[in-house]
Amino acid sequence: MRASKAFLPTMRQDPAEAELASHKLLLRGGFIRQLAAGVYSYLPLGWRVVQNIADMVRSEMDASGAQELSLPALHPKELWERSGRYEKWADTMHHVEDKAGRKFVLGPTHEEVITDIVRAGVSSHRQLPLILYQIQTKFRDEARPRGGLVRAREFIMKDAYSFDRDYDGLEESYRAMDRAYRRVFEKCEVSFAAVEAEAAAMGGTEAMEFMLPCEAGEDVFLSCGNCGYAANREKAQRLSPDMKDAPSISAAPLERAATPGKATVAQVTEFLSVPASKLIKTLIYEADGEPAAALVPGDRELNESKLAEALGAKSLEMAGADTIQRVTGAPVGFAGPVGLKVPIAADFSLRGAVDMVTGANEADAHLVHVSLGRDFRVDTWADLAYAVSGDACSKCGQPLEEHAAIELGHIFKLGTFYSERLEAYYTDEDGAKKPIVMGCYGLGVSRLAAAIAEQHRDRDGIVWPIPVAPWQAAVIVVNMSDEKQAALGEETYERLLAAGVSALLDDRQMPPGAKFKDIDLVGIPLQLVVGKRAAEGMVEIRRRGAAGSEYVTSEASALWAKQTVGEGNGL
Amino acid sequence: MRASKAFLPTMRQDPAEAELASHKLLLRGGFIRQLAAGVYSYLPLGWRVVQNIADMVRSEMDASGAQELSLPALHPKELWERSGRYEKWADTMHHVEDKAGRKFVLGPTHEEVITDIVRAGVSSHRQLPLILYQIQTKFRDEARPRGGLVRAREFIMKDAYSFDRDYDGLEESYRAMDRAYRRVFEKCEVSFAAVEAEAAAMGGTEAMEFMLPCEAGEDVFLSCGNCGYAANREKAQRLSPDMKDAPSISAAPLERAATPGKATVAQVTEFLSVPASKLIKTLIYEADGEPAAALVPGDRELNESKLAEALGAKSLEMAGADTIQRVTGAPVGFAGPVGLKVPIAADFSLRGAVDMVTGANEADAHLVHVSLGRDFRVDTWADLAYAVSGDACSKCGQPLEEHAAIELGHIFKLGTFYSERLEAYYTDEDGAKKPIVMGCYGLGVSRLAAAIAEQHRDRDGIVWPIPVAPWQAAVIVVNMSDEKQAALGEETYERLLAAGVSALLDDRQMPPGAKFKDIDLVGIPLQLVVGKRAAEGMVEIRRRGAAGSEYVTSEASALWAKQTVGEGNGL
Repeated sequence: MRASKAFLPTMRQDPAEAELASHKLLLRGGFIRQLAAGVYSYLPLGWRVVQNIADMVRSEMDASGAQELSLPALHPKELWERSGRYEKWADTMHHVEDKAGRKFVLGPTHEEVITDIVRAGVSSHRQLPLILYQIQTKFRDEARPRGGLVRAREFIMKDAYSFDRDYDGLEESYRAMDRAYRRVFEKCEVSFAAVEAEAAAMGGTEAMEFMLPCEAGEDVFLSCGNCGYAANREKAQRLSPDMKDAPSISAAPLERAATPGKATVAQVTEFLSVPASKLIKTLIYEADGEPAAALVPGDRELNESKLAEALGAKSLEMAGADTIQRVTGAPVGFAGPVGLKVPIAADFSLRGAVDMVTGANEADAHLVHVSLGRDFRVDTWADLAYAVSGDACSKCGQPLEEHAAIELGHIFKLGTFYSERLEAYYTDEDGAKKPIVMGCYGLGVSRLAAAIAEQHRDRDGIVWPIPVAPWQAAVIVVNMSDEKQAALGEETYERLLAAGVSALLDDRQMPPGAKFKDIDLVGIPLQLVVGKRAAEGMVEIRRRGAAGSEYVTSEASALWAKQTVGEGNGL
Repeated sequence: MRASKAFLPTMRQDPAEAELASHKLLLRGGFIRQLAAGVYSYLPLGWRVVQNIADMVRSEMDASGAQELSLPALHPKELWERSGRYEKWADTMHHVEDKAGRKFVLGPTHEEVITDIVRAGVSSHRQLPLILYQIQTKFRDEARPRGGLVRAREFIMKDAYSFDRDYDGLEESYRAMDRAYRRVFEKCEVSFAAVEAEAAAMGGTEAMEFMLPCEAGEDVFLSCGNCGYAANREKAQRLSPDMKDAPSISAAPLERAATPGKATVAQVTEFLSVPASKLIKTLIYEADGEPAAALVPGDRELNESKLAEALGAKSLEMAGADTIQRVTGAPVGFAGPVGLKVPIAADFSLRGAVDMVTGANEADAHLVHVSLGRDFRVDTWADLAYAVSGDACSKCGQPLEEHAAIELGHIFKLGTFYSERLEAYYTDEDGAKKPIVMGCYGLGVSRLAAAIAEQHRDRDGIVWPIPVAPWQAAVIVVNMSDEKQAALGEETYERLLAAGVSALLDDRQMPPGAKFKDIDLVGIPLQLVVGKRAAEGMVEIRRRGAAGSEYVTSEASALWAKQTVGEGNGL
């Protein structure tokens, strides 16, 4: 492509709308343009990057035996009701009613649609296993889209779905996807962590997320520097503290303290001058419809997934004000375990708790000097809080470390959640009708473009890894009015194309400084500068982001580009 | 791909939901599945065909210097209001309101979005010309989706948009797209007609449609067998009849006839026992807000585009019942030109009209023996009716012929309609600020898949042209339990892949008749059958849809496939 004919609307100034570094650079470099909050157009440069990533993902999927298809964006609402997910997702979806009054949602994910297709198309064990995938636009009504392509409302995902006869087959499909994902991220040159993720909430049995550690990321995972254990914030488990199970007794007697209008942890601990760790936060839930209390220290955050698992509850939601009043006899903010008549689950860090502050189960009052055993009992001890930096690793006891991250993908053993609800059964060799065992595997294609830019950049712009760069090489003619330079530029460009290197010829009539700024900004990895030594036939070659350069002949410059691209593509 | 591992859910029976032959075959062959009316999933086979077509379109676009990008589906409603198209399109669009209350439409076409991008990205004549294109899903809330992919509510389009400094530049872009379209259709082996289309209604200056003549098509064009003139139904012009302009006089005097409750042409002509051609249909319009009457013979249909042009009206709509009552003094169905006080335009076939029936401008009454000149006058004579078979060609006078057709694509000189409304200006060499001159060029990618299937089929299934076939060749092993056959099948399959031929190995354990039926149904053009002569190393080769076959060695069969594919791809 000739830059003189390309649509390259670069910007010198940082756009006001962007905070994240990669977002600024993708806007400034003319890769994307915002149409509405979280809704982006991919300009030709951005689309080249996205297509490069998509092609790479496609080739890894195909190599795994997966087959590509394409699924609609308009999903009948009724299908989501059948899977039982409509209520849970309704707030995150865009809703459409057509002029005939039929109700649709814009697909945020496609488990329902694909399961319905396989239900109709597969009847025998001979048609399994099957991995089907799509690389398509998905839609989510995100309350806070941010970071450009990092969290958009309209975005490009690769989603694969596996269909197996049994859990052994699922294990094979899952491992194949795991390997494919690692190859994709390695080829894209992003550093990533594969971390355990929560699966039970969606009826699954095992799940993993691929995370790009990144300060600007909104996701969090924890890892152990000692044993290598890593899990996302939802899943990360802490080691049970080594304490005697026997309750301790407080030296001081239980007392009631008036705490007028003090309902939050911050208000109460400030008012009573105790650290947050000395307060027991008592949260009332409805677990499968029955009220239950959960206790965590005041400086800890309750993890609902862990609580649901500890209670063996299929559904779990925070109790409303009415239920709290009925269960505790007090308004919200004054619940405590003392005298409570519902089952109590407590975080294991509260074992041996002595001299604690809790709500008094009456308005505007708390209890102090509360001690476990003497004043209240716990029915279920478990790891109920989110892990934080410094918590002991559940595998080896060494301290965990928190990392901000961008989630790049996930792989998920779904089991028979969807196949049972949507009646995707097959007939096995023994004649028995069985639900198909499923997995799903998501990878954010447009998000990956942003993540790569976030990781590969310097103060001048993006430094694309060769396999995803919009062009692998740029031939920059310093002065197009100089005939020798123009001719050598053209010759070098033709050599690159003949060598199979994708190239941009910067043949624009503009000051060389502006050209260099543009080519640096858009991050083309190989630069071939045709300038003052053009008369001798010499071209200056350099890597974007690396120091130093070298003068070689036009022929040698094309050979260098071809070889470097071959290495970058792992050839 | 091995058929034993492929998702090939073929059906023996015609699905009840389909009427069109291609729709039935695409469903039966496992190419597509309906999710909702007009909403389809592309299964792996169908997606391979769509991708083949998309790649072909992409390569022709790129060869024309066009640059690919990707635009959002969610368009802010406000953008459509700015271009002035919201009202006109509202009924055909899907509407979305997000949870923050922002209003969007799902893009049925992208002129607004692309013009807004170019507005922000182009400021100088040096950045022009530019052709940008997208191959993406579009959405239309079609009242009557039909024919599977022929008229869907969610469908894949290639849309290109050209941006030029002036009309000479537009002419070049338009011609480049015309050439690219012809190459695409020729490569897809569809017979097509390039016909003139109406451009003025959208503020454009010239437009053409590419039509696939096809009995099941919903579009209509007219062509002249003598001079080659062809135009769509909207645009096709008739020769002005060779009549004296002087009004004739009826022998019989004007009379009033009671026609109680007879308001339609059919009712009145039956009641009065006259042919429809003897009735003057009088239609009341509002042209740029002012009432006007249009007259056509009772057996003709008024063409509103032609009327708008004849009246020089920018906006034109049928008058409501109130306006009709006010203008004619009668309810709907009894209007006539006699005594009418608004401008009257008449189709030129009414010149010299004598002894006609018209509405009496009073309820339940018509006039008979109405004669032009004596009883009423016409302000504007023009071609106001749709042309039909037998009408005289406007170029040469020979009879036109009507053809049902599927519209495959259109090219359109937009001019400055969008650039002026959305303020896409550039600064020219002379320093003057000028609106960018635009064109747009649509091609239905998913519709083309259906159109090809509609044209290339026999009673056994689809006969795909080689360049779009899901696989170019199929190796069919008659009996997989025969080791020699299995081995020769494998060997032949490997040879095909090595020769660069995309191939399916039918290695399924099922009766050979069912395999042949499947492979014929899905329309793979080259068939290599490994059966009874496998022990001699011989393979039976044949073309799908052609008579005869031949036994050759495995090596020769692969060579044959490679050569045939090369010819099919025009190499």
